Amino acid sequence: MVDKALGGAGLRGQEAGQTALCTVGKTGSGLTYCGYDISELADKVQFEEVAFLLSRGELPTAGELIEYKAKLKSLRGLPAALKTVLEAIPKDAHPMDVMRTGCSMLGNLEMEADFDQANDAIDRMVAIFPSIICYWYRFSHDGVRIDVETDDDSVGAHFLHLLHDKAPSQLFADVMNVSLILYAEHEFNASTFTARVCASTLSDIHSCVTGAIGSLRGPLHGGANEAAMELIERFSNADEAEQELMGMLERKEKIMGFGHAIYRESDPRNVIIKKWSERLAQEVGDDVLYPVSVRCEEVMWREKKLFCNADFFHASAYHFMGIPTKLFTPIFVMSRVTGWTAHVKEQRANNRIIRPSAGYIGPEARPVPELSER
Amino acid sequence: MVDKALGGAGLRGQEAGQTALCTVGKTGSGLTYCGYDISELADKVQFEEVAFLLSRGELPTAGELIEYKAKLKSLRGLPAALKTVLEAIPKDAHPMDVMRTGCSMLGNLEMEADFDQANDAIDRMVAIFPSIICYWYRFSHDGVRIDVETDDDSVGAHFLHLLHDKAPSQLFADVMNVSLILYAEHEFNASTFTARVCASTLSDIHSCVTGAIGSLRGPLHGGANEAAMELIERFSNADEAEQELMGMLERKEKIMGFGHAIYRESDPRNVIIKKWSERLAQEVGDDVLYPVSVRCEEVMWREKKLFCNADFFHASAYHFMGIPTKLFTPIFVMSRVTGWTAHVKEQRANNRIIRPSAGYIGPEARPVPELSER
Repeated sequence: MVDKALGGAGLRGQEAGQTALCTVGKTGSGLTYCGYDISELADKVQFEEVAFLLSRGELPTAGELIEYKAKLKSLRGLPAALKTVLEAIPKDAHPMDVMRTGCSMLGNLEMEADFDQANDAIDRMVAIFPSIICYWYRFSHDGVRIDVETDDDSVGAHFLHLLHDKAPSQLFADVMNVSLILYAEHEFNASTFTARVCASTLSDIHSCVTGAIGSLRGPLHGGANEAAMELIERFSNADEAEQELMGMLERKEKIMGFGHAIYRESDPRNVIIKKWSERLAQEVGDDVLYPVSVRCEEVMWREKKLFCNADFFHASAYHFMGIPTKLFTPIFVMSRVTGWTAHVKEQRANNRIIRPSAGYIGPEARPVPELSER
Repeated sequence: MVDKALGGAGLRGQEAGQTALCTVGKTGSGLTYCGYDISELADKVQFEEVAFLLSRGELPTAGELIEYKAKLKSLRGLPAALKTVLEAIPKDAHPMDVMRTGCSMLGNLEMEADFDQANDAIDRMVAIFPSIICYWYRFSHDGVRIDVETDDDSVGAHFLHLLHDKAPSQLFADVMNVSLILYAEHEFNASTFTARVCASTLSDIHSCVTGAIGSLRGPLHGGANEAAMELIERFSNADEAEQELMGMLERKEKIMGFGHAIYRESDPRNVIIKKWSERLAQEVGDDVLYPVSVRCEEVMWREKKLFCNADFFHASAYHFMGIPTKLFTPIFVMSRVTGWTAHVKEQRANNRIIRPSAGYIGPEARPVPELSER
């Protein structure tokens, strides 16, 4: 039944389908969403415009954007049954397990009964994900039941407001906006591919996103910004960082936040978030984490020709905004849900169930021995 | 970055990896689990032996089987927080959404903190899944909080006991046993592939299984036995079934339970479950559903050379045992969790993150227009 074995493990470099949503590392175009360069998007638009672009196919007009943001704002509330579930999850749970369970529960309460409802389900997830993670976090860690329906203008500001119990500064809201844009979409990465495999069975959109969250949870995927934070906060200054990093490299330890499965020379998202991390460092008066991060970047390039990926300077940026490290990957979810769900719709529009074959390397056919003779 | 485009959509006929767990439709060997033919397994062993085989790599000795079954029996209880979640899920929820959420919640309460704990997490899921679905079903439909810790000898009997509030007959327990064996493992089907993609990020095992449940939920995958039930219960006798089926074929309507993505001439599981469906029909005095099913099989082969897959006679078999149609696919989960988790361990043992590429078919690079100019 097998036509050909694939060259690379992990399907690397193999086209598993087509997409109109994103180019990653394509010669001459770098990272684009629907044809728009990531740098220009990060510079000029709001995350909500990107979310609209990915779900509707085009950037919104001024009127559409007002309407869309008003809709998102109206969808921040948590159903009582979802609060019950979040309150039942212990403090020491993995925040990505909370996101996965929250999304799955939402599917029970607001099932996508028909694919025509996809955009409504998507808008709801974009709006409610910050509420889900912050409600659980504040309840389990601070013992308070927060009101998640704030009047903040954006998804990023809504998140920071719930987390810190006060509306964020303009600078913080701006950085969240850029961060959410940078993480929104990235072609056939493992979590998006998970969503597409699930979509290919014609399952509902909450199943697709729940599965994608589970894949993003893996340390080889979404966990890199948290691992980068754990790295940089070990060092008290840049010289110490260099010295320790050299030792780690000598001992061939895995260093997260550098290199990429697809990019070969640089990650176009790094230069953007790095600039914002620097702005934040000035704002909060940091003279440790940012210089440490810069030195890590220099050392890894000098020694290994490895470049920072999107995750590395996100670590310091999030930290400067007072975000606990364990919530870094859930922010990734709040953003990437827009990409995942766009891929789900794309898969549905031209579907064949994704069902590859496997090379068999197990035992030859053998008779079943009687229980007494084993 | 893309080395070659794959020939078939949906990765059909493409080797996406290797496995020692299963052959599907391999010339001369049909369907085997770790080298054992499915017919011989269904004839000779208990589902628990298959679960042990898939998680430990070999069939258990008599002593190991006793110990393993005792362990499963001890793991049937539901933590209080999981009961809280199940009670918060409404009656009209999709039972696969309940399974997905129950599994995800379990991951919050009993996290697989280290891959060394995989077998304990697997045993727990095999033991607790009947408790999860039946606790929710009986609470939401009958308004009772059942005690899920029964003394039944097997996973299948435990399920039927919880569902019907009494221990099943030996025949019913035997049929459940065979059914769970038949559904346990099937190579790189869409839900198993979902689990492997998730595992390839080194995520935890509950994320992998939660994602797989979401994929199995899709009507192109796990939903086929429910669709087969909806088909056969429309007809009051075999002649009517033939007449209506001919009309459906003429109108080119989709008929579920026939044909298969991999098998070309027959599904080796069909002859096995068909025999048991016949036994059950005699036992319960059916003279409609079984003859209707047989006629459907004859007509589909005669007209379209399409054969029954594993799902078709499962519909009548489950129905004869008094199982509500909406619980058919959750039974699939109770069984396939053994295959999914074996694949997770196999993926981890020789891992590279599964990250394919995509052919780009979207807009050419374009500038971002000002909001006012859209």
